[in-house]
Amino acid sequence: MPHRANAMQTSFELTTSGPGLYEFSGAVTDWLAGQGDGLLTLFVRHSSCSLLVQENADSDVQRDLKAFLARLVPPADHPSMRYLTHVLEGPDDMPAHIRAALLPVSLSIPVADGKPLLGTWQGIYLFEHRDRPHRRRVAAHFS
Amino acid sequence: MPHRANAMQTSFELTTSGPGLYEFSGAVTDWLAGQGDGLLTLFVRHSSCSLLVQENADSDVQRDLKAFLARLVPPADHPSMRYLTHVLEGPDDMPAHIRAALLPVSLSIPVADGKPLLGTWQGIYLFEHRDRPHRRRVAAHFS
Amino acid sequence: MPHRANAMQTSFELTTSGPGLYEFSGAVTDWLAGQGDGLLTLFVRHSSCSLLVQENADSDVQRDLKAFLARLVPPADHPSMRYLTHVLEGPDDMPAHIRAALLPVSLSIPVADGKPLLGTWQGIYLFEHRDRPHRRRVAAHFS
Repeated sequence: MPHRANAMQTSFELTTSGPGLYEFSGAVTDWLAGQGDGLLTLFVRHSSCSLLVQENADSDVQRDLKAFLARLVPPADHPSMRYLTHVLEGPDDMPAHIRAALLPVSLSIPVADGKPLLGTWQGIYLFEHRDRPHRRRVAAHFS
Repeated sequence: MPHRANAMQTSFELTTSGPGLYEFSGAVTDWLAGQGDGLLTLFVRHSSCSLLVQENADSDVQRDLKAFLARLVPPADHPSMRYLTHVLEGPDDMPAHIRAALLPVSLSIPVADGKPLLGTWQGIYLFEHRDRPHRRRVAAHFS
Repeated sequence: MPHRANAMQTSFELTTSGPGLYEFSGAVTDWLAGQGDGLLTLFVRHSSCSLLVQENADSDVQRDLKAFLARLVPPADHPSMRYLTHVLEGPDDMPAHIRAALLPVSLSIPVADGKPLLGTWQGIYLFEHRDRPHRRRVAAHFS
């Protein structure tokens, strides 16, 4: 197959230990360093965690985001969630799928001079929705 | 205008019969077969249905996702939705627009060796939010 | 660095005056006029507003969308939001971050003959979540 000029791909691996935001802006920035203009695309290869671009200045924002999602989509053993049928993999599993449906699975960010055009306060995060530790893979494309 | 080397586009048509997830991973995979590395982008050309990457192993997940959304955004004739004003096109119309705002309208997935880099359990779906049968078009780009 | 053939980037600036949808389909269309086929990507460089593709035919849809989000994520001084900790920047700030997490930060739209492949009734919007006037920047990439 023809090689697409100047395109490159990689995979970021992240280890998570419970629900919350895990920033990996640094790994992305390092990977793009020295590249020119282009388009960065990130895609998370799981359906029980998400990608998110959010404020990175104040960790309160991340705590509140997590708290909101925990209330919007409570665990399967919460009385309000009795209608759930997919409960064999634990009370955190189906809510994780629901949260993953509501938050981004892919992100596209223009890049100028090898730098993603994030706003001043924006960071790139993996948002874990499962309770137990997981190893997560994010596919990355730059062209 | 200059032709962009190696880029290609198509349109997927799906027929839906009420709210729920309609997988079309197979059509996407067929279209990309034989291509090399690149980036796949899907965009749904309607504002009352969505695209979704989700677990394809257990149909309970899809049923629960649909049930959650039906509770989060009930029909316009539900007492909790009395504030809605856009109700002329039926009680399922404005909730469909709201659900379409909350779920993806576009998806970007890196492709390696002609295969979208989906995780083991991930499938590509159209998520229909309207009650009556619809014909839906998804624009696809690969480059 | 090598110049990527035929790619171009720009930045759209929008002035907002309170929560709601601000359409900028026209500016995007003007920018792409005369280009060929390709892929448009938009990315909003802020974490308290969103991008959205939605129905542009009836302003009731936009009013109802705004009303739904105001109920789903009320201001921080609403009794149901007492758990929020990031409140120093005003009662509209943390809810704006939450809404920004739920709605798109990036959009990717295939382009044919210099025209984004929007559906008949779709428009491209910035969705402002903050109360006070803001100047918002959207990074755009076409390739």
